[in-house]
Amino acid sequence: MNNSDLSNTISTPTWIWYPGDFEIVLANKMQNRRTERGTFFPVFWKIDSHYVLMDFHKVFDVPAPETVDIYVEGEYHVKLDGKAFEGSPKQIVVPAGKHKINIKVFNQANVPAIYVKGKTIVSDASWLVTFEDKEWIDETGKASDISATKWLNAGSWNFNSPTQLPSQFALPVREQKAISTVKGENSMLVDFGKETFGFIQLNGLSGKGKLSVYYGESEEEALSTEHCETLDRVDVNNTEKKDEIMKLSKAYRFVNVQYDEGVILDSVSMLYEYADVKERGSFTCNDEEINRIYDVSKYTFELNTREFFIDGIKRDRWMRSGDAYQSYLMNYYLYFDNETVKRTTYALRGKDPVTGHINTIMDYTFYWFLGIYDYYLYTGDKKFIAQNYDRMKALMDYVLARRNKEGLMEWMTGDWIFIDWAEGLSKKGEVSFEQLLLARSLETMALCANIADDKDAEAQYNSLAADMRNKLFSIYWNDTKQALVHSRVDGQQTENVTRYANMFSIFFDYFNEEQKQQVKTSVLLNDDIQKITTPYMRFYELEALCALGEQNYVLSEMKDYWGGMLKLGATSFWEEYNPAKQGAEHYAMYGRKFGKSLCHAWGASPLYLLGKYYLGVKPTAPGYQKYVVEPNLGGLEWMQGKVPTPQGEIELKVTNTTVEVKAPAGMGLLRLKSSILPEGRDIVPLSKGNGLYEMAIQPGIAYIIQYKAD
Amino acid sequence: MNNSDLSNTISTPTWIWYPGDFEIVLANKMQNRRTERGTFFPVFWKIDSHYVLMDFHKVFDVPAPETVDIYVEGEYHVKLDGKAFEGSPKQIVVPAGKHKINIKVFNQANVPAIYVKGKTIVSDASWLVTFEDKEWIDETGKASDISATKWLNAGSWNFNSPTQLPSQFALPVREQKAISTVKGENSMLVDFGKETFGFIQLNGLSGKGKLSVYYGESEEEALSTEHCETLDRVDVNNTEKKDEIMKLSKAYRFVNVQYDEGVILDSVSMLYEYADVKERGSFTCNDEEINRIYDVSKYTFELNTREFFIDGIKRDRWMRSGDAYQSYLMNYYLYFDNETVKRTTYALRGKDPVTGHINTIMDYTFYWFLGIYDYYLYTGDKKFIAQNYDRMKALMDYVLARRNKEGLMEWMTGDWIFIDWAEGLSKKGEVSFEQLLLARSLETMALCANIADDKDAEAQYNSLAADMRNKLFSIYWNDTKQALVHSRVDGQQTENVTRYANMFSIFFDYFNEEQKQQVKTSVLLNDDIQKITTPYMRFYELEALCALGEQNYVLSEMKDYWGGMLKLGATSFWEEYNPAKQGAEHYAMYGRKFGKSLCHAWGASPLYLLGKYYLGVKPTAPGYQKYVVEPNLGGLEWMQGKVPTPQGEIELKVTNTTVEVKAPAGMGLLRLKSSILPEGRDIVPLSKGNGLYEMAIQPGIAYIIQYKAD
Repeated sequence: MNNSDLSNTISTPTWIWYPGDFEIVLANKMQNRRTERGTFFPVFWKIDSHYVLMDFHKVFDVPAPETVDIYVEGEYHVKLDGKAFEGSPKQIVVPAGKHKINIKVFNQANVPAIYVKGKTIVSDASWLVTFEDKEWIDETGKASDISATKWLNAGSWNFNSPTQLPSQFALPVREQKAISTVKGENSMLVDFGKETFGFIQLNGLSGKGKLSVYYGESEEEALSTEHCETLDRVDVNNTEKKDEIMKLSKAYRFVNVQYDEGVILDSVSMLYEYADVKERGSFTCNDEEINRIYDVSKYTFELNTREFFIDGIKRDRWMRSGDAYQSYLMNYYLYFDNETVKRTTYALRGKDPVTGHINTIMDYTFYWFLGIYDYYLYTGDKKFIAQNYDRMKALMDYVLARRNKEGLMEWMTGDWIFIDWAEGLSKKGEVSFEQLLLARSLETMALCANIADDKDAEAQYNSLAADMRNKLFSIYWNDTKQALVHSRVDGQQTENVTRYANMFSIFFDYFNEEQKQQVKTSVLLNDDIQKITTPYMRFYELEALCALGEQNYVLSEMKDYWGGMLKLGATSFWEEYNPAKQGAEHYAMYGRKFGKSLCHAWGASPLYLLGKYYLGVKPTAPGYQKYVVEPNLGGLEWMQGKVPTPQGEIELKVTNTTVEVKAPAGMGLLRLKSSILPEGRDIVPLSKGNGLYEMAIQPGIAYIIQYKAD
Repeated sequence: MNNSDLSNTISTPTWIWYPGDFEIVLANKMQNRRTERGTFFPVFWKIDSHYVLMDFHKVFDVPAPETVDIYVEGEYHVKLDGKAFEGSPKQIVVPAGKHKINIKVFNQANVPAIYVKGKTIVSDASWLVTFEDKEWIDETGKASDISATKWLNAGSWNFNSPTQLPSQFALPVREQKAISTVKGENSMLVDFGKETFGFIQLNGLSGKGKLSVYYGESEEEALSTEHCETLDRVDVNNTEKKDEIMKLSKAYRFVNVQYDEGVILDSVSMLYEYADVKERGSFTCNDEEINRIYDVSKYTFELNTREFFIDGIKRDRWMRSGDAYQSYLMNYYLYFDNETVKRTTYALRGKDPVTGHINTIMDYTFYWFLGIYDYYLYTGDKKFIAQNYDRMKALMDYVLARRNKEGLMEWMTGDWIFIDWAEGLSKKGEVSFEQLLLARSLETMALCANIADDKDAEAQYNSLAADMRNKLFSIYWNDTKQALVHSRVDGQQTENVTRYANMFSIFFDYFNEEQKQQVKTSVLLNDDIQKITTPYMRFYELEALCALGEQNYVLSEMKDYWGGMLKLGATSFWEEYNPAKQGAEHYAMYGRKFGKSLCHAWGASPLYLLGKYYLGVKPTAPGYQKYVVEPNLGGLEWMQGKVPTPQGEIELKVTNTTVEVKAPAGMGLLRLKSSILPEGRDIVPLSKGNGLYEMAIQPGIAYIIQYKAD
């Protein structure tokens, strides 16, 4: 790779590292903060680490001699044109002309990272990095052959000051007061008014004795010292009053602080810990319940967007590929924060060798690939694909080596086939849903092989993908049932039909139109088919119904399900909701009284549904170079909102009689039902027919289209 | 693996970790201490790191309730029979009965390690460890399938006290005084009398100013402030006198300390840093020069035996697989220290994925396998083979995937074919020496597959090995030249004959007797064949000659070559010696005035030659269960010595008329030429014939055999 074309672009100096290494180590820190009743609770899969020895280099064409400051995390040396400076210089002078600068860093405990700041010589993502430079000199003085050395572009984020060390990264915090405190004799029950996350601060703590903090997402949980999921123990021994901050941030609305006679405590507050991301999407409509659902979804998603997209803030605090996949989709309609997507993708993947499925779950490996498919579609970021391609390939090698003799994915020892929390769900034989996810993963690989210019692999992945799609229909489609069946066991279709493969085949467009309509009746709206009870799979079920134009139905489902939680006082959306339960029954799960997470990322899916299927905005070419706007009020009187794209927000206001739309860039297509043809106006339709009316949206123009009510 | 059979053996508690992890991280620390004129000088290949999250467990059958103390390096939890204790307990009570104890540890910066001490519950190498326990619970409460989880036995060494933390390991030191100090106005030239290694200590240092320490293996080097290979810079700013110890240990005999006007220095001493290994082998004879050669070899080897077997102490301070392989062999005749062999083997191998040859050198990958072959032969340690087998297999997979279309090893991009430092040595095409090393490596794999009970692989490796040996002769043997030729290029034998493949085929017994004799004349004693100039390959050349019974010739070569260095005042043996050079010319190499290492492990090979081919002791079944003693005075009048074995030392005294031998264990075979038949004595010969006389050696019996002089 030649980076000389980058050498004269002056950019902002920033800390750089090997791509993925900062992310993997940060994930280790984050995931290992999970505790269960005070006990350290780590993950059960392999976690990886950074490369401890790293070579960074770049060639610069320097117009005039310049002084360059060098900051490094680790032991290091600096070479100019292959010659090392003595010691580990903090500053060097580079003469005018074309020069190669190498900095080689060893750091066992933290990620090797550098920050270089001269006038034109600065560290940024255009530097090249490797963990094996193979720079030997043989006895003849001949330099080694380094043509096999893989160079990647450096990883970076926003550590733009020399003192802002990547190893010291912590999320920002801000103080938050309680809304009420009930003081007991040796206790305080503190309510922060809504679900929150951060460090409890014990103000004016003095005396001597033991103190316990019992956390609760509900009041019941905080009061249940025996069954609350998280707690802290403090040995107090302060002669003077002191504010003490708990070591680990936690999730709660209530805390119940109990302490010995000899302990004095003035008050309890907290430091709210949050990710510094920007809200770019929005949605409002005439229905206040939907607005509230949207707002609580936003808050739920805010709480679960941390260093990474995590599954739930109280219990797990881990990254789960299935949950993360949904977070990515929500993110494209709220923050459009590429960095968190990339970080999560790197961290979930970890490093070679692959010794198990992501999170040990077969389906979760596939969601990892699907996440990259969507990332590229929404962002158009080819660089990340190229940087990440080898990891994709190695993971797909692992998958392909685990196909059975029929070329299908089947349970092997050590694998977890999850699909969903659902009673009696069979994992036996060859499950259709896993084959479907593999087909889509192979399509992703073909797409990325093309971007990485790996032509042979592209052809191979395309052929494997086509083969898997054929098999999906030849093996699982049942004409009588008008559906894909759940599985094949011993070469025989099972009788069981489940929703999973059927609903995904709708929005993946694997079904033709006829099949879609058949499946809508035979599966999606068929009460005889086992119901979905988790918001996790509910996400896809509602998406499939929206993709079939059932926005009115989905809106009422949303009001039922999410509105139901709000009626119970939810301040964030839950891991699971069953309207049949009563009171504190709602908080139980996994056989534990307060096992359920009351703030789970997958609970925030209205963000995605309202953005993609009501405002109706979605990219049709990478990075919103092309996109459609296909608004559907779904029974609402009006709605308005913004959908973020790489170049800015697409703004939309829709009523029964008008559509207002404005987009910052790209080739847009406004698609309306032709039954509501616009009146007058000098806009030339692109096409009519198929019951649809299509119109081009040019960047920067505010369109107002009036039409007759539907 | 069932470890219940181990549960009632009470052993010494010791710190334990994942096997190889302590070793790899220690290697990172050691190898990154290399500096060149004050500049950090790291390796150029990939280095690895520890698993940051580790699960340790063992099942114990406890006779009575016991209190167990727990010490951990890292964050951790403790489970008893699957149930976690709150927090991270330092002490638990285990009730009587059968119980499983799990300790799970996260440590990003250091190797996760535990030390457990109860009455019967103690941490030792019988614990099982994994980096992915896959212990999930699904929605039905069913525990995960963990049958694919790989458990290994824990790694350990000698950290037998709770306060002796593995992460804090450092080699011991002892003070050493200078034998002379020449004081200048603002300088001191200090002589420690012989090559040494350790931390320079500046005694009574005060004042303000700069101070430099220039190190020299020779006086010339220490005095050459411009060209000495290593140095230290100190900023002095002490109002009171202080002893200051340099941060990094270094190799030198002389140091030249120079300082500013304002600096006051009383004296210079050093802390000698050494590995705590025990000398068990010995050799003395009537020839004082040979005795001196043996002693200086011992000292040379002592200096190069550190945390690991390294190549040289001044410049590299790295592990090199080719050098280490020779150190292993010397070790079997001096220390018989298995721990250093295992540590070096783990550290050289590193972790998966394999991204390059060991040290980037193809031949060095093969020496790694060969080292394991010898390790097993000398020690009989099956456990290490079993623990290490997966790493062997993955490395061999890498090798086999790099064969060319003919199934031969040929240079690929990123590979270094080293063989030897030799002028004009061709690396083109398919080099015979590399095929030979691959054949032996495959034999090693077959042997180890058998130990690891991997029958299919054993058969496959055996077949591949046989094929490679056939190819070695069918492709490279030249009847006219009576030798293996150096290489094949474009399908044609080259005309070139080099010594490498020919001499190895002698002591690997790849040649038949006729070929051996042919090659002795046509190659080994043929001055038209390019001469070997490095002690590295000289090692094997002299071994081949010894294996052919040329001990008299080799003895005089030894006196010439090693004796030559001694005559020049060497206090340790060098990386290279050319008698034609004069004075300080001897110190130059790699185009640098003092580039040559004057203390190189491979210089100590007389340790091996004298033990194996003069005392003549070598194992013929793993771990000296069987061995031969085949003494050869090689022109000496008498010699005596000890050769270490796993069970003790074999003691031997040989003169022209007697052999005295005593062995601690195993089935020995004393082999003497039948031309010197013993007189009288009531010993029954096992066999006569083939010009040899063989006699059994029973353990614990002191034999004295008298015979006529040869």
